[in-house]
Amino acid sequence: MTGQPGRRAATKPDPPRPRGREFFTTRTVSEALTGFRPGRRTPAEIIALADALHRVPAAAVTAPHALPGFARSTVDGYAVRAADTYGVSDGLPGYLDLAGAVPMGSAPDVAVGPGTVVSMPTGGVLPPGADAVIMVEYTQEAMPGTIEVTRPVAPGDGVVRADEDAAAGAVLVPAGRPLRTHDLGMLAAAGVTSLAVHARPLVTVISTGDEVVPPGTTVLRPGQVRDASAVALAAMVSEAGGEPAAGGIVPDDPDALEAALRAAVAGSDIVVVSAGSSVGARDGTAAAVASLGGPGIWCHGLAVKPGKPTLLADCGGVPVIGLPGNPRSALVVFRLLGMPLVRQVGGCSCPPAEPVVRARLQRDLASAAGRLDIVQVRVRDGMATPVFGLSALLSILTAADGYLLIPEEATGLDAGREVAVTLYR
Amino acid sequence: MTGQPGRRAATKPDPPRPRGREFFTTRTVSEALTGFRPGRRTPAEIIALADALHRVPAAAVTAPHALPGFARSTVDGYAVRAADTYGVSDGLPGYLDLAGAVPMGSAPDVAVGPGTVVSMPTGGVLPPGADAVIMVEYTQEAMPGTIEVTRPVAPGDGVVRADEDAAAGAVLVPAGRPLRTHDLGMLAAAGVTSLAVHARPLVTVISTGDEVVPPGTTVLRPGQVRDASAVALAAMVSEAGGEPAAGGIVPDDPDALEAALRAAVAGSDIVVVSAGSSVGARDGTAAAVASLGGPGIWCHGLAVKPGKPTLLADCGGVPVIGLPGNPRSALVVFRLLGMPLVRQVGGCSCPPAEPVVRARLQRDLASAAGRLDIVQVRVRDGMATPVFGLSALLSILTAADGYLLIPEEATGLDAGREVAVTLYR
Repeated sequence: MTGQPGRRAATKPDPPRPRGREFFTTRTVSEALTGFRPGRRTPAEIIALADALHRVPAAAVTAPHALPGFARSTVDGYAVRAADTYGVSDGLPGYLDLAGAVPMGSAPDVAVGPGTVVSMPTGGVLPPGADAVIMVEYTQEAMPGTIEVTRPVAPGDGVVRADEDAAAGAVLVPAGRPLRTHDLGMLAAAGVTSLAVHARPLVTVISTGDEVVPPGTTVLRPGQVRDASAVALAAMVSEAGGEPAAGGIVPDDPDALEAALRAAVAGSDIVVVSAGSSVGARDGTAAAVASLGGPGIWCHGLAVKPGKPTLLADCGGVPVIGLPGNPRSALVVFRLLGMPLVRQVGGCSCPPAEPVVRARLQRDLASAAGRLDIVQVRVRDGMATPVFGLSALLSILTAADGYLLIPEEATGLDAGREVAVTLYR
Repeated sequence: MTGQPGRRAATKPDPPRPRGREFFTTRTVSEALTGFRPGRRTPAEIIALADALHRVPAAAVTAPHALPGFARSTVDGYAVRAADTYGVSDGLPGYLDLAGAVPMGSAPDVAVGPGTVVSMPTGGVLPPGADAVIMVEYTQEAMPGTIEVTRPVAPGDGVVRADEDAAAGAVLVPAGRPLRTHDLGMLAAAGVTSLAVHARPLVTVISTGDEVVPPGTTVLRPGQVRDASAVALAAMVSEAGGEPAAGGIVPDDPDALEAALRAAVAGSDIVVVSAGSSVGARDGTAAAVASLGGPGIWCHGLAVKPGKPTLLADCGGVPVIGLPGNPRSALVVFRLLGMPLVRQVGGCSCPPAEPVVRARLQRDLASAAGRLDIVQVRVRDGMATPVFGLSALLSILTAADGYLLIPEEATGLDAGREVAVTLYR
């Protein structure tokens, strides 16, 4: 980034060209989402179950044995042979001999024979000979040792089978889907206290620009701005299951950027360059990427608004995303393309659903065919009102409840139309 | 929990009564969500911005100064007095003198006077005298020091005002709404690198039951089950912004439960007792709660399926939730009532939106008026298919994509009806 665009304009026909295979290749977002699919996946690591929420299993986990593992009562009552209750009613109760009691958490030391019952707590082991449990509500101890039964049961009533929650070898959680809270419960039930998950992709975020200073800079000199993008991008990396690493702030110097990029690529699963948005800065990122070799630049320029200056590259197997310098554009593009990429490299084949609401569009929106537009909106009372402003403004994002997309094939959306708004959370 | 429900049934008219103000008070879920609203809030703590994603600001954070703080160019081009460009066109260009260049990240050392321009990088400080920036695309350096301009600009074009992202004192993030990724960017832009957030509510989860053993138990004795609920409840606590603490497994012994509950209440913001589901176990939790004093039991029995044995209490300002012993019921009830409670105690007044999809119900569902039913469903091709099974089965949850509610006032839902399914993530 220099201070003299005039001079650059004068030499426009002949800018320095990097050595990348492709240069200034504009692509659509659809093409990027389907076509830019690096094969990199993080390796598996073993972690404790208690730390596994939202982590991505590297392989399906199967049940080491049947669950619950024994036929259990689901009610308080009496284990019984169902046939002994057939035909009983309030008017014509049956009378069965109480042969004993099943203690909680232990094996029964008594069996159920014809004409006998054994008292059962919820969750107790069904004793041998019994095929059902009758609820205590439909019984009464008529006299010590004799149980009056007033409702019939069928075989299996009041019982969970030994393999009803899972058969031995059944898949408890699939590979590739982030673990949910109840998945952890299922694994605990099966005695799985550690498991193999994909390591969190290490994503290094490099900020560039002579004007960019750390957020902790209390007093700004004229022209300086604090690095707003890095902390937000790091948070988006975390949200997508990645591990953000700070690549620091690099000045507008080709050698410094190349060195920073080279170091980041060597130690990361994904590299994000939050670049200056000027043509010069983009050329800088492209040149640095090209100097690193590998397949190189996949696209340089994306048919998206905001976010046109986006660069996607593959540096020897490490995906590199060059983001626009305007913070809003950078964050919008990273949500659109970067977060799915982090999930993908992290082995997630089944990303979590986003909250989406339907709303009526409050005003006409224009777009260009072939370009995806991402419009920030507020949603109130079923109405989506666009929040407009320069792409340099972060306040457009913080004022919005979510965003809508104007698809590539559309030239706009009419007021009153129903739109799907993805909500921020 | 004893092994002898028969004996308990015989003495049914006269069970021991705890000293709580209310006992066996059944409430609806609506009543619980609106009426059981403990006033407890966690105190504020100061944390680093980088750790603040999804944390809840304890107070609104305002801009310490205007943002960006200086009028900035939004394009590469030339700072100009707009009036000097009026009437120019491709056919009738204007010619202005190049007075200098604004370097990136520094104050300009040159002003724009009548008939002059100053070259500008995107993001540069607008020099004194200029009121607009004309894009480099509409200019050409006609000869050294003379810029040809072919398109007019209006005042403000190509410029972001000094306070356009935020005025000094403007609210950057409100209190009570969990911080989003771009909120962190906005705070960084303003130089806010630490902030006051509500401490994460400490939520102790106690499991009870003679049959319950730690998940790490490799070989189960007959009748034993591993503690499936605790790890899943802890994960739900985390997801709601709380800090889970393990209260351990307590046997079915009134004194042990009372001691565990007393210790948990003394050191927690919320206590969850994952109880046995039998009447005996429920009485045990109720008795222990009553012995602790405070307002005591708010409800004991909830009109919800699954989850009827739920107990809600206030022990001297600490909310206590007694959950059913069936893991599925426990997890369903905690999602419904526990997670909102964790958010509330953690100062969150604006919970994040959940992903919800609309689908057609695949079959009729029956319910009882006055009771809320929570039905697990799979969703495929716009069709919601209920996953049925005993409430003892966790596999019902892990097989489901989400759940739907049959409202308290409904007696069922007809096949083909459009329903809202909240998706798990």
